[in-house]
Amino acid sequence: MINKLIEKIQKTQAPIVVGLDPMMKYVPGQIQKAAFAEYGETLEGAAEAIWQYNKGIVDAIYDLVPAVKPQIAMYEQFGIPGLVAFKKTVDYCKEKGLVVIGDIKRGDIGSTSEAYAVGHLGKVQVGANAFYGFDEDFVTVNPYLGSDGVKPFIKVCKEEKKGIFVLVKTSNPSSGEFQDRVVDGKPLYEIVGEKVAEWGADCMGDSYSYVGAVVGATYPEQGKLLRKVMPKAFILVPGYGAQGGKGADLVHFFNEDGLGAIINSSRGIIAAFQQEKYAKYGEANYAEASRAAVLDMKEDIAGALAARA
Amino acid sequence: MINKLIEKIQKTQAPIVVGLDPMMKYVPGQIQKAAFAEYGETLEGAAEAIWQYNKGIVDAIYDLVPAVKPQIAMYEQFGIPGLVAFKKTVDYCKEKGLVVIGDIKRGDIGSTSEAYAVGHLGKVQVGANAFYGFDEDFVTVNPYLGSDGVKPFIKVCKEEKKGIFVLVKTSNPSSGEFQDRVVDGKPLYEIVGEKVAEWGADCMGDSYSYVGAVVGATYPEQGKLLRKVMPKAFILVPGYGAQGGKGADLVHFFNEDGLGAIINSSRGIIAAFQQEKYAKYGEANYAEASRAAVLDMKEDIAGALAARA
Repeated sequence: MINKLIEKIQKTQAPIVVGLDPMMKYVPGQIQKAAFAEYGETLEGAAEAIWQYNKGIVDAIYDLVPAVKPQIAMYEQFGIPGLVAFKKTVDYCKEKGLVVIGDIKRGDIGSTSEAYAVGHLGKVQVGANAFYGFDEDFVTVNPYLGSDGVKPFIKVCKEEKKGIFVLVKTSNPSSGEFQDRVVDGKPLYEIVGEKVAEWGADCMGDSYSYVGAVVGATYPEQGKLLRKVMPKAFILVPGYGAQGGKGADLVHFFNEDGLGAIINSSRGIIAAFQQEKYAKYGEANYAEASRAAVLDMKEDIAGALAARA
Repeated sequence: MINKLIEKIQKTQAPIVVGLDPMMKYVPGQIQKAAFAEYGETLEGAAEAIWQYNKGIVDAIYDLVPAVKPQIAMYEQFGIPGLVAFKKTVDYCKEKGLVVIGDIKRGDIGSTSEAYAVGHLGKVQVGANAFYGFDEDFVTVNPYLGSDGVKPFIKVCKEEKKGIFVLVKTSNPSSGEFQDRVVDGKPLYEIVGEKVAEWGADCMGDSYSYVGAVVGATYPEQGKLLRKVMPKAFILVPGYGAQGGKGADLVHFFNEDGLGAIINSSRGIIAAFQQEKYAKYGEANYAEASRAAVLDMKEDIAGALAARA
């Protein structure tokens, strides 16, 4: 799957992943109205609204980007109906040829991580049959429990030719509280980065490992360091746009080959129509506003990479 | 809810939580057969089997213990039908008067943690209505992202009078890989423990905070230290029984008042009938075997606490 991700990045010339993190306040009025007319102001109604909203965006951008990253919390908040909408979104994006990164940030003791890995990347055995649960292509993994919380994911990735991104340095303001603590002269995120490189060493695709890392766009200096610590890890970079990251901050996340990173934007793309810059599209054409925002982001990143060269 | 948990511990004289972590290999043949006869060897069949299995155990033990802890991964592995079984289990346990600790180990950046908090502890707004998603009483939270990943859970706990247990020192063999790293002369778990005490300081029930901690039974020395670092935090202690923890290892997790800790056992109770010790009950009476295992565990812990006094 890492090879497919790279091929698609090269084909689209866009190292970009669109974060499908729907919140009701982003969903255009006409979509909410139609969903509530059918299901009432219920969890089912909310789930229908976010699904239709996602579908509009995916239809408008699937030819421009290699991947999407649905954040499962935004679905899980609507209980079971929300998770049904998550699954529909995953399936639809795959039908459209997109690589799907499930942003699930799971991680537990060994046997429990195995259950998460099976449920999100692999197949679970039921009697004589085996079934995919959510069937994303990649998932994000929390490393706080150490190797035996991460390795069950890697095992399933090997079997299924899928991949993971391990949280190394997250994009949020308080990420430094524990991640930046200095251990033997090095910040903890660097030690986690070294582990990612170690875990990924025997998990190679053609040029990159399918054990990748998450490093926030909001921390470009740390990105520069971690790029060197994990030369073969693909870096998933959240925090572009709404969280404050800019194209010029991102160049050091990439290797000399122009690869090695994929930049996520969520709100900046899916709620573009709510920004002044794209207001002319109006609520009715929210998906076209998202398309325009993807094209602008692509140009910003390409420009920054060209300026580096 | 922390007050209710403590009242129930005092009433049952059992600082014990039963981990409802069903795996198909634990589910007695007769239950699997009935579920598959109705739904086939499908995800729905598996979900029905684990739900009926749980129900049998809950019916046999609900008067003996204050709380249960369903591990969501064991349900999530069966996709949507599995999560429906999780929700049914949560609801049923609450009907039976049990305190429900959702072992979900979520944690993300602020806005995303807010969605998890709303989905698992609080209510989500849909138009003019508000709905509970999963509605556990407590959940476990991963602290790797720092304060702004934890505080949204605390906010919802305040509103809903619920609680959390933050992962501090986990029970698994590789937990030390990052958690034991020494920062300014202290292991990272101690620094996380200090944060738990800080977060919990203005979240007090009558005698304990509703911001608790997870510390594994498999690390009694660390438990002793962390008990002092977080005097007002209730400690959820996994790792008893199958993972190797024993009653005598656990006394230092408790305060002088005999409170402050609740010990989890999962496999050791729910799959007791598969142990030689309880084999006489047979598969048909698996729930009675679980009841006997709870009584034995209660005696083991009470004996250890009495020996301390």
